Amino acid sequence: MKAIRSETEFINRLIGRFVPSPRRRNAPHEADAELIDLFGRTRPGTAPLLAVTTDTIAEEIGTGLYRDPYQIGWMAAMANLSDLAAVGADPLGLLVSETLPDGYGQDALDKLQGGIGDACSSLGTHVLGGDTNSGPALSITGTAIGLVGDGPLLTRKGCAPGDALYAGGRLGRGNGFALSVFGNGRPHPFPGGYFPRARVREGMLLRGAASACMDSSDGFFSTLDQLAGLNGVGFSIIGSWEEKLDAVSLDEIRALGLPPWLLLAGCHGEFELVFTVNASRRKIFAERAASIGWSPIEIGTVTEYPGVLIPVEGGARDVDVTHIRNLSFRRSGGIREYLEALLEYEHDLVKGE
Amino acid sequence: MKAIRSETEFINRLIGRFVPSPRRRNAPHEADAELIDLFGRTRPGTAPLLAVTTDTIAEEIGTGLYRDPYQIGWMAAMANLSDLAAVGADPLGLLVSETLPDGYGQDALDKLQGGIGDACSSLGTHVLGGDTNSGPALSITGTAIGLVGDGPLLTRKGCAPGDALYAGGRLGRGNGFALSVFGNGRPHPFPGGYFPRARVREGMLLRGAASACMDSSDGFFSTLDQLAGLNGVGFSIIGSWEEKLDAVSLDEIRALGLPPWLLLAGCHGEFELVFTVNASRRKIFAERAASIGWSPIEIGTVTEYPGVLIPVEGGARDVDVTHIRNLSFRRSGGIREYLEALLEYEHDLVKGE
Repeated sequence: MKAIRSETEFINRLIGRFVPSPRRRNAPHEADAELIDLFGRTRPGTAPLLAVTTDTIAEEIGTGLYRDPYQIGWMAAMANLSDLAAVGADPLGLLVSETLPDGYGQDALDKLQGGIGDACSSLGTHVLGGDTNSGPALSITGTAIGLVGDGPLLTRKGCAPGDALYAGGRLGRGNGFALSVFGNGRPHPFPGGYFPRARVREGMLLRGAASACMDSSDGFFSTLDQLAGLNGVGFSIIGSWEEKLDAVSLDEIRALGLPPWLLLAGCHGEFELVFTVNASRRKIFAERAASIGWSPIEIGTVTEYPGVLIPVEGGARDVDVTHIRNLSFRRSGGIREYLEALLEYEHDLVKGE
Repeated sequence: MKAIRSETEFINRLIGRFVPSPRRRNAPHEADAELIDLFGRTRPGTAPLLAVTTDTIAEEIGTGLYRDPYQIGWMAAMANLSDLAAVGADPLGLLVSETLPDGYGQDALDKLQGGIGDACSSLGTHVLGGDTNSGPALSITGTAIGLVGDGPLLTRKGCAPGDALYAGGRLGRGNGFALSVFGNGRPHPFPGGYFPRARVREGMLLRGAASACMDSSDGFFSTLDQLAGLNGVGFSIIGSWEEKLDAVSLDEIRALGLPPWLLLAGCHGEFELVFTVNASRRKIFAERAASIGWSPIEIGTVTEYPGVLIPVEGGARDVDVTHIRNLSFRRSGGIREYLEALLEYEHDLVKGE
C-alpha cells in the first residue's frame, strides 16, 4: 500500500468510501463549510442553502498550545464560526460535544462554557445544543450551522490571474501566539491574548464581491496552497511585512531572531479571511467594506504562474507552500521537530536552495 | 459549592451560561434533537424546522465495549441518526469529526469509514463533511442534521395517564451486548453482533400519532426516567419479559444467573424508539405501522402514579429509575463497580428493600 504523504490525499482516501450526497452543492475541498441544498432538486433555485461545518479542538490542548479553559471554549466556537464566515453564511448557531477527563474541575468547566458562550454572543449567535462524555483528555467538537440565502456562492473556487488578494486584517497572530508558548523553551504572556473573532459579518458582505474565499485557520501559506491548487493559479505577495503582520507577533518573532514571513508559514493560523477580488468588483467590494468600517489589507495578486512568490531579503522567492503545509500534516515528532523543519526550509530558501 | 449528583443538574449547569436561541423550539431536555426554526420569527408557520444533534463515541471505546473499528463507525452514525428518528426528522446527512491516535492503522481507518458510510447508506442518507485530528485516543463525534416539515412536533413531552407505552422493537440488546463483553470476565462473541439501526422511517410516521417519543440510547429505564420527569407521570410495565426482550440478550443474562429485567436497567441502550400513544390515535398509529410492516411492542401504560412499576417475581415492584440512571452518571470506578451497584440495587428490590 502506498504511503499517504499529503493532507489532500489523506482526506480523499477517508471520503472514498462515502456515497456523495446529491444535495451537497460544493465538491470536497472546495469550501470551508459544506453547502447543502435544504429542499432537494424538486424545488431548484427557491431554497436557501444550509452551511455546515465541524471542527475539534484537541491537538491544541494536547500540545499545550491552549491551556486556559476559557480560551479553549472560545476557540471551539470561533474555529467553526470562521468556516461559516468564509462561505458568507448567516449563523443559526453551534452544537458542542465535550469530552471531559475524569475529575475535570467545575471551575475550569465553568470557564470553558463561558468561553463558548461569550464567543457565540460576541457574534450574535447561540449554542443550540450539545453532549458530554468522559475520556482520557479534554476535547471539544463544535459544529456550526448557518444559512446562505439566494445569490452567488462564496467558495474557495473562482479566482483568476489578475484578481487582487486580500486578508481581512493583519496576519500572523496565530503563529505569534504559538511562538509565545513554544518559541524559546518557556511560555510567556502574549499581549492581548489570542482570541480571534470570526469575520461573520464581513464574509456575508463578500458574497458577490469576492471571487474566492477561505479562512486562514491552518496558516496563511496553507490557505494559499489550497486556493492555488483548486484554482490552478499562483500568488505574488507585495509590499512590506510591517503593513501586513500583527505588531505583537512581529515583536515576538524578531525577539527570536527569525524572519517575519515565518509568521505566515506556521500551521496555527489567525482565522482571518483570505479572499480575492476581480477588478470588475473592486468598487462594490470597497463600498461594502467601507459601509461597516472594515479595512481589509491588500496582500498581493493572483498570478498565472502557479507558485507563491514572496519578498525575502529584497528579492522575490518562490515558496513551496505545499511542502510547508504538509510539514504540519506529516509531523509526528511534536512541535519542536516541526519548528526545526520550518527553520530548515527557511534557511534553504534564503540561501537559494 | 454544592456537589452535582444528577445528570440533569449537571447539564443545567453546563448550559446555564449560554443565552438561549430565540429560534430553538424545544426547551432543554425536551427533545432528542434540537428543533430550530430555520427562518426565524418573521415567517411563522411557513418554515420547516431543522433538527440537529451531536454525539461522541469515546467512552465506549475507552472502556473496551467497542473494539471493532467498523462497529465504532457504525455507532457514531447511528447514535446520531437515532436522535433524529426520535423527533421524526428526515435526515439531510451527517458530519463526522474524528480524533485518531498517532499511528492508527490505515486498515482500521478504512473499516471505521466503512462503518460510518454503510450506516448512512442503510438509511438512505450521506456523510456531508468532516474533520480529522490527532489525539491520545480514538474518538468520533457525529452531528446529524434533518428536516421536520409542517405539522405536529414529536418530542419527549406530551404523554398523559392512560396512553399506551410502546417500544419500536425488542429491548435489551445494547445491554446484552455489553454483558457479552464485560459480563463474566472474558469477552465472547455476541450472535448477530451489535449493529442497531436507527428507526428513521418509523419516527417520521410517529409524528401526529405518538404523544411523546425518545430513543433508548442510555437504556430503557433511563429513558423512562426522563419521560416521567418531563411529563409528570409514571409507567406501569405489563406482560412477560419473553415478549419484550431480545432473545440473544435473554440467553446472555440467564447464563449469568441474573434476572431478565436488568437488561432494561443498564446504561448501554438499544437505540430503540420508546413512545406513547393516546387512545384517540391508536387506530391511525396501527394503520401507519402496518403500512411499513412494522410491529412495535406494547410495553405498558402511562400512569398518574409517578413511579415505574415492573413485574418482578410475580408482583409489581416500584423501580427507582432516577437512581438507576444516575448510577451511570456518577460512576467513577469503571464498569465492574457500576455493574455491582446495579446488582446491589436489584438485590434490595427483590428483598423488598
